[in-house]
Parts: sequence; C-alpha cells; structure tokens
Amino acid sequence: MQRIQLVKDELSFSRCIQGYWRLNEWQMSVAELQAFVEHGLERGITTTDHADVYGAFTEEGLFGRMLKQAPHLREQIEMVSKCGILFPCEAQPDVTGVHYNSGGDYIIRAAERSLRELNTDYLDLLLIHRPDPLMDADEVAQAFNTLKASGKVRHFGVSNFSVAQFALLQSRLDEPLITNQLEISLIHSEPLFDGSLDYLQQHRINPMAWSCLGGGKVFHDFQYKALREAAMDIAQHYNAELDQILLAFVLALPCNAMPILGSGNTQRIARQVDATKLQLERQHWFALLEAARGMPVP
Amino acid sequence: MQRIQLVKDELSFSRCIQGYWRLNEWQMSVAELQAFVEHGLERGITTTDHADVYGAFTEEGLFGRMLKQAPHLREQIEMVSKCGILFPCEAQPDVTGVHYNSGGDYIIRAAERSLRELNTDYLDLLLIHRPDPLMDADEVAQAFNTLKASGKVRHFGVSNFSVAQFALLQSRLDEPLITNQLEISLIHSEPLFDGSLDYLQQHRINPMAWSCLGGGKVFHDFQYKALREAAMDIAQHYNAELDQILLAFVLALPCNAMPILGSGNTQRIARQVDATKLQLERQHWFALLEAARGMPVP
Amino acid sequence: MQRIQLVKDELSFSRCIQGYWRLNEWQMSVAELQAFVEHGLERGITTTDHADVYGAFTEEGLFGRMLKQAPHLREQIEMVSKCGILFPCEAQPDVTGVHYNSGGDYIIRAAERSLRELNTDYLDLLLIHRPDPLMDADEVAQAFNTLKASGKVRHFGVSNFSVAQFALLQSRLDEPLITNQLEISLIHSEPLFDGSLDYLQQHRINPMAWSCLGGGKVFHDFQYKALREAAMDIAQHYNAELDQILLAFVLALPCNAMPILGSGNTQRIARQVDATKLQLERQHWFALLEAARGMPVP
Repeated sequence: MQRIQLVKDELSFSRCIQGYWRLNEWQMSVAELQAFVEHGLERGITTTDHADVYGAFTEEGLFGRMLKQAPHLREQIEMVSKCGILFPCEAQPDVTGVHYNSGGDYIIRAAERSLRELNTDYLDLLLIHRPDPLMDADEVAQAFNTLKASGKVRHFGVSNFSVAQFALLQSRLDEPLITNQLEISLIHSEPLFDGSLDYLQQHRINPMAWSCLGGGKVFHDFQYKALREAAMDIAQHYNAELDQILLAFVLALPCNAMPILGSGNTQRIARQVDATKLQLERQHWFALLEAARGMPVP
Repeated sequence: MQRIQLVKDELSFSRCIQGYWRLNEWQMSVAELQAFVEHGLERGITTTDHADVYGAFTEEGLFGRMLKQAPHLREQIEMVSKCGILFPCEAQPDVTGVHYNSGGDYIIRAAERSLRELNTDYLDLLLIHRPDPLMDADEVAQAFNTLKASGKVRHFGVSNFSVAQFALLQSRLDEPLITNQLEISLIHSEPLFDGSLDYLQQHRINPMAWSCLGGGKVFHDFQYKALREAAMDIAQHYNAELDQILLAFVLALPCNAMPILGSGNTQRIARQVDATKLQLERQHWFALLEAARGMPVP
Repeated sequence: MQRIQLVKDELSFSRCIQGYWRLNEWQMSVAELQAFVEHGLERGITTTDHADVYGAFTEEGLFGRMLKQAPHLREQIEMVSKCGILFPCEAQPDVTGVHYNSGGDYIIRAAERSLRELNTDYLDLLLIHRPDPLMDADEVAQAFNTLKASGKVRHFGVSNFSVAQFALLQSRLDEPLITNQLEISLIHSEPLFDGSLDYLQQHRINPMAWSCLGGGKVFHDFQYKALREAAMDIAQHYNAELDQILLAFVLALPCNAMPILGSGNTQRIARQVDATKLQLERQHWFALLEAARGMPVP
C-alpha cells in the first residue's frame, strides 16, 4: 500500500488508516483484535486511529489490553489519538456536562491517560479533537512542547478545524501541525469548497478523512437515492462495489487524503483497501459530485 | 479592574468600556453626566466609546458639553470614536441617503468634527465604523497618517470588519490596527465560528465587544426562552444575575474581548463590572452556547 | 478610454473589455466581425475575451477566421482565453460527461488548440476557467511554465476562483496571477462581501467582471422590479440609461474591475463605454445596493 510521508525521515502513514471508533461494538476478544490488527498489517494498514472519547472513553483501553498481550505490534504500527471532548459517562464520573477542553494542563493529563489506556510509551500523533472557542493557542503550544520534550507524543495535529482555527494554532507552534482530520465524503463535500482542502494542499499537509462512506447513509437513506444510483452505475463501469466508489471519490482528491476505514470486518477492509487501485475518470468523479449535490457544476 | 494593554507603553483600556450609544436618551444634565463618568472611574472604567453617528450625530456634542465643564476628566479617560456612516438627519442637512464614506478627506473632516463636538484635542482611538465596499485602502492609510502626524488621533482600528477587510486595510498601514469592535454575544456568536476571533487571537489583537447582552432581547423575547432559562439556572449556580452571565460568556473568550456596557444606570453598571469576577466553568459556558444555538456541539 | 496596467511595462487592458461569449449567436460575416472589432478599437476597446468552451467550442474558431482575413488586427488587440471546462458536444466527440480538467497536459493541449482556433501565435492571457476540486497546483504551475517558455502564453490568471483557491495556485507559481475573472453585478454582489474583492485589492490585482448587467434579468424579471425601479430613478438623475447605471455600479468599486461587455451591437457597446464617464455619488451607489439586496445596510 502507498505510504504518505508526513514528516521527512520521521513519520509516514499507510494511505488507508484503520479507525477504532466502534471497537467497543465489535465484541472482539483480545485474540480476535490482535488477529484483526495483523490482518490489516498484511494488507499494509499500519496506522491506527483512536480517541480518548471513543466508546465513551473505553476504546483505548480495549486496544491497550491487546497491545499488552502483543507488545511486539507497537513498533509495527503508528498510533494516533485525540483529546478535548468531554461528556458525562461512567468513565468520567466528575463530568456533569458536555464540553470541550483545550486547556494546557488538561491536554497533558488527557495524553497521559491515553498512553496508560493504550499501554504504550508514546503516541505518534496527538490531535485536538474539535475546535474549542475557548482555546488559548499559547497554552496548547506549551502543552505540546511539554509532551514532545518528554517523548510522550512525537507529532501534533488537529481535527475538524477550520482554516482560521488551524492558522491560529499553527502561529504559536515551533513545528508544523501535520494533519487536519476532516469529515470528507460525497455527502459532506464542504471541505472541497470552503477552503479547507485548498489550504492543506497549499501547505502540503495531508488530511486524514473520516466518514468517507457517509456513515452508511448513502447505502440506505431515501435522501441519497439519486447519489446511490449514480454511484452504483459507476461502480458497475469499474467492476467495483459501492463502498469502493465512495472511497475512490475521496482518494482522487489532490490533497492525498488518508481515509480512515471504520469497519471491523476483515473482508470489507480488504475490499476497501482495493479501492486505492481505482482511478476514477474525471467525468465519473464529476458525475458523482453532481449527483451528491443535486445540481450541475457551473 | 483589569486593564488591557493595546499598545505597549502607549495605550491601555479598562476591561469594561462605557458606551454612550444611547446618551441622548438618558436625559442627563451636564452635572449628572459628569457624576456618571466619575462613578465609572471609581469602578475602574476609564475607557469611553463614542461615534459621530450616535444619537443622529448628537452624542459626541452632549459628552463634549460635559467635558467643557470638567476638562480635568479628559486625561483620566480614553476616548474612542468612529466615523463613516451617514444618513439624513437634522445634524446632516446635506445628506440625502444612507451611505458609508471611507474617503480620505471625509475621514479627516469627520475626525475633526468629532474633536470639536467632544471638546478635546485628540482621540485615543478612531475606528472606521462599518466596512465600506467602496473603501480605497490607500486613501484610508493616508488619512490615518495625516491624523496621526497632526496629533489629532493617536491610534486606529475598525469595527464590524471581516477578516478579509481587516487584512486589506492592515496591508496598507504602517502601524497595526489595534482593535476590531464586533458584535459578540450569545445571540450573535458568529465571530466565534467565522474566523473573526481566531484571526484576532492569532495577531494578538483585542476586540471591543458591542451588544454583549443582545440588546435586551434575551431578557424578554419568546424566541430566546430556552437560552434565558438555561442562563438563569446558571446564574443561580453562581449567585449572579442574568446580565452578568451573558457578560461572563463573552469575558471567557481567549481573545480578551472588552465589553462595551451600554447602560446609563450606575447600579447596572456596577453590577455588570462585577461580572468580570465570574469565571464560568467550561461545562456551563458550553451549556449556554448550546442553549443559544439550539443544537448540541458536535 | 482608461487603461489598466496589469503587468508593469508588459501588459495593459482597456478598462472595458469586449466579450465574445455569444459570438456564434451574432450571425456576423467575417467582414462584419472585423468591422465590429474595429468599431471597438475606435472607442478604445482593445481587449478581447474568449474561451475554448464558448459556443460549444466554436467561438474561438469564428474569431480566428476573422483574424486570418485581418491579421494586422492581432497586434492592436489583447487576447484572453480560458480552458478547463468540458462537456459533450459536436466539437468534443470524445467527451461523454460534463467535467473540469486542470491537468498539466490538458492545459497545454487546450491552449495550443485555442491558438490554432484563434489563428494567433500567442495569448496575452490564459485563465483557468473554473476552480477544479481535482486541481493539482504543482501540475498547473508546470504547464504555465511550459506555455510561458514557449512564448505561447504571456501571462496567466484564473476565473471564478475563491480566495483560498487563488492563494493555493499562486503559492506554486513564479509569477503573479494577474486577474481573477469574477461575476460581479448588482444581482451577484457576493464578491463584495465574501473577501474576493478585498483580497484582490489587497494584492493590487484587477478583476475582470463578467455579467455586470446580470444577464439581462434586471431589465425584465419580476424578481428585480424594486432594483429596476431604483436604478431607473437614478439613471434619470444622471441622464443615463439603465445599463449604464448597472455598469457604473461595478466601475465604482475600488478594485478597478474591468467589465466585459457581452453585446454584439455597436450602439449598445458605444453607450456602455460611455458609462465609464459616470461617477455615481455614494448615496446612489448605496441606494442601488440596498435595492438589490432588499435590505438596508446596517
């Protein structure tokens, strides 16, 4: 599988990334999870995407239990995690209302918790999960410096940030933010038009792309009937499946987005990895865009 | 009261600013206005916000009459005024239609008129009141230079400017624009999300905030019932009043916004100044935001 | 007629530009088209606007037939063309679906086709016709360099680009993009407010303005009744025609937009050129804006 060089001589990701958003729903035993990770590695997926908040703050712990059993896997994978979202749940008994926290001390505590939960000494990449209107960029910068100096986190990025929010945080940092993890799909094509992807291409930053399949809605919802039919016609042309076409749409973008695959099914993952071999012709790519937006390009 | 350093060694404002938008409605005698200003000074409010256009071009004159009686107050306060809006009214007999004017000659004439009306030799800060699509940024820069050289205006800023409009004007100036006076409140939270506040924080520029209480609408309008109830619950938690909570929401922003208090009532002003001592917890701040926007944060 | 200096010592355009979008509908003989061009030259219109896609890829050929008969005209005019839009039509038998193409090889092929069709050795200016989400800015830069080195295209620009798209492409180029051709009119005033014109003024780039008359809709559509009546009142005040007022609105912008006149009627062109002598007072300009937007300026 193609690898994307994120930091020269220091860090590269596999083009497709395995997401563990729903790990707690997969009901995998430790051995099954290890087998699932190894299956991904066989297909070239080395990068794993986590967040403290996934599974109501339980996802990292599940993955960490597996890593404890199979510690040799740590050096074969890259680990991305995120912090900053808080909501009341069993694992956060002190939290009484949904909120974000990008305070300096909080970021350090959250990253340290992620390391403990994940059973690892370092994160390859830590992301601020959501833009926080209360973010003091100087505080974040200081927290990043502390985490970097201690070796606990090697690189930093953001998720769901607008261009202005990205530029603000970047202005305070000594090193470049190496990604912005964005929702990019045929049913969420805003980043193609609101400047987000233009800005990333300009600065040669590769986005991670979440929910490339639209959370399954394209497959079932009446609202997306026209898109689904157009995509299935095109899938037939390429002798491909619907999910592959939806991924190929994102993969065609010139910013080299790295799709996060959210499935826990090895067959689906294998099939979706194969989407990286599809090269949509421009006329098909635009036909998908038009079907998704319900209007012709001008 | 906290002071905000706007220009190193040259200019600081009180965190809360007294606005005189409605001075003509307050029906104060010269002596009463002087007492009102002195009451503010006792509470640490040294900064006063004016505009040529307030009170249909009569507000500055009312304040100036008081300054003429109490000229010693001039050095105890900072005076901000604005120019650029014109509309037909008694004080502008030549104007036949609403319009903006950011022409170089006009800005100089308007600032000189403000000085005469306010009975002062200088403004601490002059703002372009509204972005004008006809603005020739080079002309504005030249006018600012002339006003600065003559000592009539010490510093310059803008009001209600978008990021692009701010960057355009700044690109022509020798000195930094020191503020953007924006409408910021729970019922006008756009600047938190459209890049305006991100840009200001990035460039370490402190906004002045107008209409932080939403022009009273939060207190009465049916439309804001959910917000009002959420804010009153939170007020109770802090043993505070509704207006204090609305101000605390703005004061919590990391850009150090300086709220302009619009009341002519000394009791209200004293109470609102006390809001600077409130520190909203993040969960309460986000609960207010959610109630105001009618949707959960993602 | 006023000339706009686009590149120092190298390229200037006439303030008004003759557009040939509808040349194929004008039903002009070669001699009539030559007379039409010469009529424009007498009025100072030296700049001509073309695109490969106009007239379903036939416009350039029609103009080129004329240039072949009157090759002496080439040095008296500036020629602008555009590439990047493709759709199925007789002249493009291989195209099976609407799409954009900003691939490097394609741009070179398209420019070479334009030269052949137009019967000229060089374009003064080549524009990317529409922003393409699939644009690889490095590829475009390489194509521009190749076309420049060969002398086939002297300068480059874009059309309908957002600020972010413009900044992205510019970041890869050795020379400045010299224009962004935008739809600017009373019924499409978005560029005045979305940062597009602010950005161009900031970087001292002059936009070309297309559809300044709103495609005729202001003259007839019920939807624009209020604007039409306001504009006709103002026209009367200046002893001018409606189309002249619509043009004067665009001409008043501080970015020095260059209107593209789309008519093939010499009388209308002469009248519209005369609009450059109108100077709308600010109150009339704002009255037009308010009538067009159906709301007062704040």
